[in-house]
Amino acid sequence: MSKEKNFKPSKELPLGFVDRQEKELLVRDFVISNIKEVMIKYGFKYLETPSFEYTDSIGKFLPDKDRPDQGVFSFKDESNWLSLRYDLTAPLARYVAKNYMEIPKPFKRYQLGTVWRNEKPGPGRYREFLQFDADYVGTNSLQADAELCVLISEILQKCGLDKKDYTVKISSRKFTDKLFEQLKIKSKEQISTTLRALDKIDRLGWEEAKKLLGVGRKDKSGDYTKGANLNSDQIKIIENALKSKTSDSEDVLEIIKIFKDYNFENYKLDPSVIRGLEYYTGPIFEVNLNFEVKNSKGQAIQFGSIGGGGRYDNLVSNFGNFNCPATGISIGLDRLVFALMQKKDFKIRTTRPVVICVFDKNKNKEYVAILNKLRISNISSEIYPGEGKLKKQMEYANKIGSPAVILYGDDEIKSGKATLKNLESGKESLVKIEDLSNEIKKLL
Amino acid sequence: MSKEKNFKPSKELPLGFVDRQEKELLVRDFVISNIKEVMIKYGFKYLETPSFEYTDSIGKFLPDKDRPDQGVFSFKDESNWLSLRYDLTAPLARYVAKNYMEIPKPFKRYQLGTVWRNEKPGPGRYREFLQFDADYVGTNSLQADAELCVLISEILQKCGLDKKDYTVKISSRKFTDKLFEQLKIKSKEQISTTLRALDKIDRLGWEEAKKLLGVGRKDKSGDYTKGANLNSDQIKIIENALKSKTSDSEDVLEIIKIFKDYNFENYKLDPSVIRGLEYYTGPIFEVNLNFEVKNSKGQAIQFGSIGGGGRYDNLVSNFGNFNCPATGISIGLDRLVFALMQKKDFKIRTTRPVVICVFDKNKNKEYVAILNKLRISNISSEIYPGEGKLKKQMEYANKIGSPAVILYGDDEIKSGKATLKNLESGKESLVKIEDLSNEIKKLL
Repeated sequence: MSKEKNFKPSKELPLGFVDRQEKELLVRDFVISNIKEVMIKYGFKYLETPSFEYTDSIGKFLPDKDRPDQGVFSFKDESNWLSLRYDLTAPLARYVAKNYMEIPKPFKRYQLGTVWRNEKPGPGRYREFLQFDADYVGTNSLQADAELCVLISEILQKCGLDKKDYTVKISSRKFTDKLFEQLKIKSKEQISTTLRALDKIDRLGWEEAKKLLGVGRKDKSGDYTKGANLNSDQIKIIENALKSKTSDSEDVLEIIKIFKDYNFENYKLDPSVIRGLEYYTGPIFEVNLNFEVKNSKGQAIQFGSIGGGGRYDNLVSNFGNFNCPATGISIGLDRLVFALMQKKDFKIRTTRPVVICVFDKNKNKEYVAILNKLRISNISSEIYPGEGKLKKQMEYANKIGSPAVILYGDDEIKSGKATLKNLESGKESLVKIEDLSNEIKKLL
Repeated sequence: MSKEKNFKPSKELPLGFVDRQEKELLVRDFVISNIKEVMIKYGFKYLETPSFEYTDSIGKFLPDKDRPDQGVFSFKDESNWLSLRYDLTAPLARYVAKNYMEIPKPFKRYQLGTVWRNEKPGPGRYREFLQFDADYVGTNSLQADAELCVLISEILQKCGLDKKDYTVKISSRKFTDKLFEQLKIKSKEQISTTLRALDKIDRLGWEEAKKLLGVGRKDKSGDYTKGANLNSDQIKIIENALKSKTSDSEDVLEIIKIFKDYNFENYKLDPSVIRGLEYYTGPIFEVNLNFEVKNSKGQAIQFGSIGGGGRYDNLVSNFGNFNCPATGISIGLDRLVFALMQKKDFKIRTTRPVVICVFDKNKNKEYVAILNKLRISNISSEIYPGEGKLKKQMEYANKIGSPAVILYGDDEIKSGKATLKNLESGKESLVKIEDLSNEIKKLL
């Protein structure tokens, strides 16, 4: 916070944060409205917890411990530490504990909200993103887990994806629990470091992730991350286990049986699905897109998952003596939107206003009369909002992508007709004021 | 961050933050969809800046300096300070400076987003709230200022308010500039302390605000705020000026002339409108609700404004050599929603699912078949999502406010009919599976 007199602040954004433009926001609105429709149909309640929580309340379940403050934005508030939520699940557990007596059990809620991760920013890695979460709280029933996969599928199809465009992968934390038993890994820290390393296979590839299973890994920037210190035999056992395409985990088999009742076939059993968060206790899911996605440089990339989730039966009981099994799923909306926008045949309509040009400030009343007529007909429209000659006004209309301009100079006012200029075809026509709305609707 | 073994984290929220329930969120969605419709019609572009900015970039224009860190949440990030935005205007100025060459001029954008203020929390005073902002950037035209008032009016009417329910008050920063000249106040600090004190008249009343114009004020909690150190003559001059119901400010007179072109009459000229933010340079607006609003204790309260704005011609030029006059308006959506929910005749529909009861886990396939039929007909529905006897399932259905339950036991399965129990009337009827959707639609 500089105090210099001629100090000019930065026009840039901190790393890991972005400005989002209209087209992306409209696609996001489209996705959100589909989510809300499906959530109502499936009987979920809409809830919103705030962005800040007591740091203690949301715990430290984050997979990324590269940073001293455990990957969260934390803030000292008088005598307490507050943190921006890093997911929507930990705040839900706090909400359930706080309102345990009042809420129905089971409790089904969905939330849409921004989450923050104070991780090392990098290309395509953001520190703030919008999530959608749906959770079943207070139930052991694996029907809940199964239905989460079914509902995500319905949402994606509503957004225009075909069955071939995505896969819901399922596995179970019980599978890795068994693996760790076999490997004789018992220390909580070693287990969580191993889970985090395994979760990074998708992004780093097996060879790099292997380093994190061993002594550690230096990334491109030179930063060093300590590994899980497994020996080469242990790493070999893991490699083989992840390659197997079956899992005899009972919970997963039960879910697959329920999928049949729903005629849901768009899943894949995949033990290599890990999910980094420590709080999972049973079935875990991951939603992957199968169509080609390009990065900002136009290169086809391994896009990875757009979300996932799983069962977390012990999270609420951190707050006290609650027996409150739960399961949930999260979708990263920014990632889904990014991919959707690249899908062939996916279109979103943006509306740009018709511009009424200003010839004479004293004729404002006449311009406003036209404007009100157009707006009453629900036509996006504006009087040129600045000051300047006609040429500048036309440049403005072209720049904003206006479909047409209306010219209403002295001659036109006398005749009771305005000139409507179609900016796409360049064609001009004289139109009676009362017919303007209809003529404009024809050219939109 | 306690490390004790049996440590139980708090179930409470930090002061100034709240959980929001379905009904409020649905009203908010309704308001937001109205805003978006009006924004498209008026030709504004949808934009979203991130929640974090470099602290330097968004400056220190906050009215509340009671706190050492100027009322913002700030975080040290390696060598830079980041802050959560305290409004949507300062980030817009940063965005405009960053993209000055690319954006159309004038530039009209709207944004919906959470803002944070690290102020002293108190009853009804939150530290996070959702704002809607619409701005005209790069124009001196007072038509822009006038249209902001007109569009807010249209939004409020779309939300169900009558003309008598709200007033747009207008004044001008030029009015206080003149007043300060008359009072011979020149120091920037004294001016901003005076503006903040005046802006608090609504909330504290004149007698308490007067203390802030003088030496200072101790609040109920015992906290002391230094005043502007004006003498009693100066305070008297201010008091008289604020009581006058006219303003000869040229900009305000011009705006009122433009209002006539729009047939907009729902405004009031009011020099006592101050707005605390320092960056205003010309016309200022405030939107007030006129109907009775009660606080959480059921007491009728002086609700005050739901938003406002004004012209800020110098904000973008803080970033460099930009000649970029601008004007904008903000609405506090949480406050508007809070008031709307109390308005007589205002209703919002919440949808709760029909519950299909579970008699036998092995009959899941039959239950899912019914569920799919209902959901295809877009009926909110679910299979009881837990485990337990019929009595518990009925209690659950009543608790969530379900309109009906479906009972499909062995006898019913044999007959091809299900029992539909209306939970409002208590009436039961046997319905053929293929007729269920229609029967349910009748009772909704």
